Amino acid sequence: MQLQKIFVNGERLKNTIEAFADYGRTDNNGVTRLSLTEEDLKVRDYFRSCCEELGMSVKVDDMGTMYATLAGVESGPPIVIGSHMDTVKKGGRFDGILGVIAGLEVVRTLVDHGIKPKLSVTIMNFTNEEGARFEPSMMASGVLAGKFDKAEMLNKKDLEGITFGEALEESGYEGDASNRITEATAYLELHIEQGPVLEQEELSIGLVDCVVGMACYEIEATGESDHAGTTPMAMRKDALFAATDLITELRNKLSGLDSELVYTMGRMNVFPNIHTVIPNKVIFTIEARHKDMEIVREVEAIIHSLPEMLLDCGVSKTKLWGRETVWFDRGICDLVEQAAQTLGYSKRKIASGAGHDAQFVASFLPSAMVFVPSVKGKSHCEEEFTSYEDCEKGVNVILETVLLLLSK
Amino acid sequence: MQLQKIFVNGERLKNTIEAFADYGRTDNNGVTRLSLTEEDLKVRDYFRSCCEELGMSVKVDDMGTMYATLAGVESGPPIVIGSHMDTVKKGGRFDGILGVIAGLEVVRTLVDHGIKPKLSVTIMNFTNEEGARFEPSMMASGVLAGKFDKAEMLNKKDLEGITFGEALEESGYEGDASNRITEATAYLELHIEQGPVLEQEELSIGLVDCVVGMACYEIEATGESDHAGTTPMAMRKDALFAATDLITELRNKLSGLDSELVYTMGRMNVFPNIHTVIPNKVIFTIEARHKDMEIVREVEAIIHSLPEMLLDCGVSKTKLWGRETVWFDRGICDLVEQAAQTLGYSKRKIASGAGHDAQFVASFLPSAMVFVPSVKGKSHCEEEFTSYEDCEKGVNVILETVLLLLSK
Repeated sequence: MQLQKIFVNGERLKNTIEAFADYGRTDNNGVTRLSLTEEDLKVRDYFRSCCEELGMSVKVDDMGTMYATLAGVESGPPIVIGSHMDTVKKGGRFDGILGVIAGLEVVRTLVDHGIKPKLSVTIMNFTNEEGARFEPSMMASGVLAGKFDKAEMLNKKDLEGITFGEALEESGYEGDASNRITEATAYLELHIEQGPVLEQEELSIGLVDCVVGMACYEIEATGESDHAGTTPMAMRKDALFAATDLITELRNKLSGLDSELVYTMGRMNVFPNIHTVIPNKVIFTIEARHKDMEIVREVEAIIHSLPEMLLDCGVSKTKLWGRETVWFDRGICDLVEQAAQTLGYSKRKIASGAGHDAQFVASFLPSAMVFVPSVKGKSHCEEEFTSYEDCEKGVNVILETVLLLLSK
Repeated sequence: MQLQKIFVNGERLKNTIEAFADYGRTDNNGVTRLSLTEEDLKVRDYFRSCCEELGMSVKVDDMGTMYATLAGVESGPPIVIGSHMDTVKKGGRFDGILGVIAGLEVVRTLVDHGIKPKLSVTIMNFTNEEGARFEPSMMASGVLAGKFDKAEMLNKKDLEGITFGEALEESGYEGDASNRITEATAYLELHIEQGPVLEQEELSIGLVDCVVGMACYEIEATGESDHAGTTPMAMRKDALFAATDLITELRNKLSGLDSELVYTMGRMNVFPNIHTVIPNKVIFTIEARHKDMEIVREVEAIIHSLPEMLLDCGVSKTKLWGRETVWFDRGICDLVEQAAQTLGYSKRKIASGAGHDAQFVASFLPSAMVFVPSVKGKSHCEEEFTSYEDCEKGVNVILETVLLLLSK
């Protein structure tokens, strides 16, 4: 069955984005809406009312994750559109929320056109994706996928010492474990790219085929603190000199691996960090990401091949964590590509360098993601922006994919 | 007139070092005796009593600096032996105090042998040399030499907000400006090396001919913070990569200048310093020291020749401060060398890489310094140590120099 050609309402979509941004909007037009705070609870109430207006039923599971369902005419695993509504502190108006609003706009459009879908359409709002109030990030989707231990997560504390479990109980959004999703025809997540690739290439749609694998290490150089004025160069054990040589060696070797590899030394601390004292210890992180785990393993081999001693300083390497590349469902990805193709939008395949709920969901539901461009690649900041036109295109791709799934 | 050959009392010297270390001794056999604290005031009282027992008269000037004088038989500018009794937090038992104890042991030895010196012998204790409680270091000698403004110094506050002026008034050690020293036959300062050279070369005596000049800069690389997972390498403005390249370039160029040049990047701060975020700012210090100011100026030229832009990051250089090399009095240095030669001690000429009261005093009194070895080059820490034998040799060099001055 081929359904009629329909599109989302771009003006309504823009208004919806701004309406949701009112919950926690900052002075600089960003959003602060940490998980289970007053702003988050209010936006949950608002989301619930929007869904109920459309005749959807809203359930909540034991991690506070919301499921708003437009019942299908036939029984069968639902089509799920999901993401999260929490933000980091002084985050933006698009990260996360766009994927939830996409679901709302898709259902509104179906209802507008009097379409009673064959399969149920469920919109999900995952609790605490950002991990900005309670670490780790992607907490609820991680529990749902069996990657995190629920009891452990309930004990995670925010900066004020409140546990996630206490905040959840207090919120009124603690539901039953029986409401957890266990099957779906597809899980679709629309998200901003959070990187500069689509904008640079002047494309509107990113067809996300995977969330890249990564490895993160901490490297420590240990030397000796001596007086900067009285210690001849040849008698020094300067941990900063050792660390900069290590970084240079890493950059030289990693730059030759693969053009899609990204690597970052984001954190570096120098001790004692006094201008007149030779540093006796430098600790820095290196994390590298690539969709091909063979390349990630090559990175790890390069890290392990660093010398044990350099410039009379000891060198140690500790793996902090890593993750395997998560490949999205081939069949769903093909449908998403077909949808974008049908709509005539400019597009490319892209790997997600950042983590998303979809990477956990993909372990038990056939999943795919769609990216829309981030202006200047910015996210997790008040400047975060995606043009409303691109947002509209992204939601149209989700809608078209839903229609393709319904027409099967 | 050639005086009889006499030596200090090594056993008494050791006991004196330990007796003074009791004022502020730490659990790990170091000393915490910050300027004008209770420990400092008690050790001042003790020093005063030791001097008065020897028949010396004790005066204090308007910066709290103490002058204990054994009156000479003839009038004329005194021979001065001085240093400081304050320490850093968890400092050692030798830095500073050894130079004051040297004076005490020299006078005790003269008295032992019934020598009534032709010229007065004055022992000085400078207030707040370390600058550990009130910045800057060498505060009182700086005021004495006209390098620092007294009113400004009186307003310097410690961490608790107490001004130097308040602490001085409270201490009972605020004397009169008329007691400031204005002339001397010689100013002699015995100090630990605070570096590894004498120990490495197995020498007992350092004949200090200068305090080296230096320049200190702050260098800032400014890039852009982006997501570590989503930003391709070619689109980054990584301030840490720029900073490490700058450090490498500095090291390469500076290493070719002169073997006696020392340079240190002791402080380095990375922003925002999060492992998943590309650094947008790195600030590091570079300080370089050499006795030849031409070489210090070459260092400054190298710093200024760093590019304004590197890896798409802005680079700025700010001079924090600098100082010219201070050369000690040639005549006094020759006498000190003659004294060490007469005593048959192993010795070498050495430049002081660290700052000392003598560098300010040298601007208006004929001055020289003597170094004794620091075990492993350590100072400003509880492990700071100089063998009592080396201390004894150092004080004997001071005594012999005094005798040479008296016999002129």
